[in-house]
Amino acid sequence: MHDKVNLAAKLTAVGEPFAPKIVAQLNDYKIEVVKAKDEFVWHAHPDTDDFFLVLAGRLTIQLRDRSIDLGPGQLFVVPRGVEHCPRADEEAHVLLIEPVGTPNTGDAGGERTAVETRI
Amino acid sequence: MHDKVNLAAKLTAVGEPFAPKIVAQLNDYKIEVVKAKDEFVWHAHPDTDDFFLVLAGRLTIQLRDRSIDLGPGQLFVVPRGVEHCPRADEEAHVLLIEPVGTPNTGDAGGERTAVETRI
Repeated sequence: MHDKVNLAAKLTAVGEPFAPKIVAQLNDYKIEVVKAKDEFVWHAHPDTDDFFLVLAGRLTIQLRDRSIDLGPGQLFVVPRGVEHCPRADEEAHVLLIEPVGTPNTGDAGGERTAVETRI
Repeated sequence: MHDKVNLAAKLTAVGEPFAPKIVAQLNDYKIEVVKAKDEFVWHAHPDTDDFFLVLAGRLTIQLRDRSIDLGPGQLFVVPRGVEHCPRADEEAHVLLIEPVGTPNTGDAGGERTAVETRI
């Protein structure tokens, strides 16, 4: 539970895009790694902000009124309730932080909703 | 408030070691960058875990019974109540996440306690 985490090593165990895996926990927040490729689904999290830090590659967080383009070492916090849709033309590796229990698809739900899994 | 954050650019504005600066907020958590050099002070946070992600350089988180050596892309969460003392022989750049209001010196206090400052 309380060992150090090598993010690049954890990412080698991640397959499907936009299926986050939990690698650590900070109080009641889950620390996750995810691979992004192509487009996810538009959704919002009504009860929480949503933290994205790009580790490798480039990620675009589409908002309804603008897009946030992130490279390695760049982060963005989507405010609670704000619709967003992540997209990556090439595979990107991302660190996510959200409260435990927050679904990856937010209020949209659907078949791309991931089960919370620790690796 | 809700712009993307380039961590390396923010770190150019950080001077004194172990004086974290807030660069973003996730709900009631502060996202901070800090430069580490030499040894900080032994302390614990009785009410919160403590998140460290190394961005550049190497950081040793000394615990009473072991040390955690972290390089870039490696993270460690110090459990609440666990005494720790960060140390870096050469300057290291680190991302910290803690609840707003958490003092950097925890229960130790003293002259190295930083005022929460956003950059």
